[in-house]
Amino acid sequence: MENGESRGARDTARTEAFSDGVFAFAITLLVLNLRDPSFLSPGVYSGVPLFEGLVREWQSFFALVTTFITILVMWLNHHNMFSHIDRVDRRLMLRNGILLLFVVLTPFTTAIVADHMTLSDAGTAAAVYSGNFMFIAISWNALWRYCAKGRRLLREDVTDAEARTITRQYLVAPLGSVVAIAISLVSGLASVTVVLAIAAFYAFTGSHGH
Amino acid sequence: MENGESRGARDTARTEAFSDGVFAFAITLLVLNLRDPSFLSPGVYSGVPLFEGLVREWQSFFALVTTFITILVMWLNHHNMFSHIDRVDRRLMLRNGILLLFVVLTPFTTAIVADHMTLSDAGTAAAVYSGNFMFIAISWNALWRYCAKGRRLLREDVTDAEARTITRQYLVAPLGSVVAIAISLVSGLASVTVVLAIAAFYAFTGSHGH
Amino acid sequence: MENGESRGARDTARTEAFSDGVFAFAITLLVLNLRDPSFLSPGVYSGVPLFEGLVREWQSFFALVTTFITILVMWLNHHNMFSHIDRVDRRLMLRNGILLLFVVLTPFTTAIVADHMTLSDAGTAAAVYSGNFMFIAISWNALWRYCAKGRRLLREDVTDAEARTITRQYLVAPLGSVVAIAISLVSGLASVTVVLAIAAFYAFTGSHGH
Amino acid sequence: MENGESRGARDTARTEAFSDGVFAFAITLLVLNLRDPSFLSPGVYSGVPLFEGLVREWQSFFALVTTFITILVMWLNHHNMFSHIDRVDRRLMLRNGILLLFVVLTPFTTAIVADHMTLSDAGTAAAVYSGNFMFIAISWNALWRYCAKGRRLLREDVTDAEARTITRQYLVAPLGSVVAIAISLVSGLASVTVVLAIAAFYAFTGSHGH
Repeated sequence: MENGESRGARDTARTEAFSDGVFAFAITLLVLNLRDPSFLSPGVYSGVPLFEGLVREWQSFFALVTTFITILVMWLNHHNMFSHIDRVDRRLMLRNGILLLFVVLTPFTTAIVADHMTLSDAGTAAAVYSGNFMFIAISWNALWRYCAKGRRLLREDVTDAEARTITRQYLVAPLGSVVAIAISLVSGLASVTVVLAIAAFYAFTGSHGH
Repeated sequence: MENGESRGARDTARTEAFSDGVFAFAITLLVLNLRDPSFLSPGVYSGVPLFEGLVREWQSFFALVTTFITILVMWLNHHNMFSHIDRVDRRLMLRNGILLLFVVLTPFTTAIVADHMTLSDAGTAAAVYSGNFMFIAISWNALWRYCAKGRRLLREDVTDAEARTITRQYLVAPLGSVVAIAISLVSGLASVTVVLAIAAFYAFTGSHGH
Repeated sequence: MENGESRGARDTARTEAFSDGVFAFAITLLVLNLRDPSFLSPGVYSGVPLFEGLVREWQSFFALVTTFITILVMWLNHHNMFSHIDRVDRRLMLRNGILLLFVVLTPFTTAIVADHMTLSDAGTAAAVYSGNFMFIAISWNALWRYCAKGRRLLREDVTDAEARTITRQYLVAPLGSVVAIAISLVSGLASVTVVLAIAAFYAFTGSHGH
Repeated sequence: MENGESRGARDTARTEAFSDGVFAFAITLLVLNLRDPSFLSPGVYSGVPLFEGLVREWQSFFALVTTFITILVMWLNHHNMFSHIDRVDRRLMLRNGILLLFVVLTPFTTAIVADHMTLSDAGTAAAVYSGNFMFIAISWNALWRYCAKGRRLLREDVTDAEARTITRQYLVAPLGSVVAIAISLVSGLASVTVVLAIAAFYAFTGSHGH
């Protein structure tokens, strides 16, 4: 059971499971950003009627949904990327870890963008938010290129053409997030919408696995 | 090991594991809604005796238990639904993701309903709570119907009659939650009780898997 | 792959994995009960020197370690109990869910006992804490007895003598926690120590699996 | 399926999965230490501009990144250590549990060191932080030595020389963390940097599994 091949499969499975855990926790922690608008703190009534307060909090829900969908699509594509990988090594695990570091930051950057979207520094907040996604995109490309370079960790049945297609598709995210950062100078809301559009791109274009 | 069939099984397993993670995490985060009634904030004593304070917080415990049981039954039935599915595709994963988005919101809607159950806007809070379950129920039906339509993703040994029975059973949740929303106009507590009754229905009627 | 037998194995595995998730989250959430004694709230300095403040918080650490060890031993024994079970059914899953409900409450009851251990109502807090463990113990026995009755879900190679030994061992927890509740009338600290002693009993006496 | 051998493999897998859950969860909870500098509490504006506030919070990000990398490298090496282990027993699980107890504390010690790094008691905070890593390192060595002693739980294909190399490598962490504690008397920042250096050592020297 523990020959080289099955150990390799187990390593890959454990790396995927660890990543899945981080994605699932980060996506669930987003809910802690939502607050009951009728209470300033537990037991201290703010006098804001519930329905009116929830409507006024629209930007918290918008940011939560955007981030949720973005992390969900990342999970899907992480999964898809690993279906092209034959085995993992320590360098891959470290690169994957750096990617997860920025994934872990998303509940924080989501809170920032939600709290500031209607304030004067909405642009700064959106730049922080898009900037984090830019770092995710860069780590993602670094991870993939490490695997694909000279077909280092690719599975045999992945053709060179398939690998090149993926390499090209993965460039959309870093370029798109630079655009989102630039747009944040003009409008925070537009910037977050660009992030949502990038997620939509990956939701519908991902190759369908191996 | 990595032929089409086993990859399909692995995809299904990973989707189930990711969903399990979100269910388990959401169900555990519910505990963060409970507070020590003797402290306004850490270190700031409120003067309320512990026992009396916990009794006065009964609605937090009631809401927690209701949501816990509802998520537990959903997990059970999610599990059961996937036992009828042969393989997953990207569209199924996205639909499953939308379902999980509303599952992630439940610790928030539970806090809302618990905080407001003894206030004048208990009805609004119960409508928010039941409304979230309505969205869960709608996403659930969308997910199942996508799989069942033309037997798209069903396993071969699932009979058409079984599939139709499930389709019918799954209608109870969206209809029941519309009833819960309507009742919230009259009584917040009654509305939450309807949600609990829907969970009880699924606890005892689910078909027993494949 | 999906014949009755392997489906049974998969159901059991998924139930174990879901339970593991809840145990692991509950055990990790305990850390949110710890607070920096030098700050009343983020950015509001309390003037308490860090070292002195941490020493004064000793009861938080004591409660955390007690609960951590108790949940750890429960996880171990949950694992052990499932090694005697051949398959799971819906009733077992529901009973297991009720057990997990009380496991999820432990970070809350731990916070209660830690906050009150040096106050006048330490006894009430310890009764809440031990009371929750009593409910865990009762659910645990209900779960085991459901499996063992008439050997309903037991594996073939589990002898009747083994099953009876487990049934007897499992009685220590509900009886012990009733003792802990009784002692809480006299001393909160002594009551928590009884809970720790029960955990130690199970750490060293559990049968060694199948 | 359930003969002794495969049960042993399943026990090992479940212990690894439980540990992975705690590692992944602890690493994700770190994000709760980050705060929006523009708000004292939800809805209470502090007047600090976002960008300036985030820059002033640099020590929170530095501490988060250090801890994240340290836990990531621990996860990697935990994984690697288990690839040398043939089976788990109850004593190993208990020792592993003690190790996880200190892992669970890291989000707390990280918050402590971040909050105090620019205050006069930065040294105490860094001592708490490094002290926790010292306990992790001691538990880790206790766990490994239990497995390696007389080759108790080692796999057959692990040579004595390999086991001795690992035993030697694992000594770096307890010794290094004692150094970090000593340095905390002089500089909190330098102490945290030593912890980061220890993590870097393990990132690049771990043997490559079995």
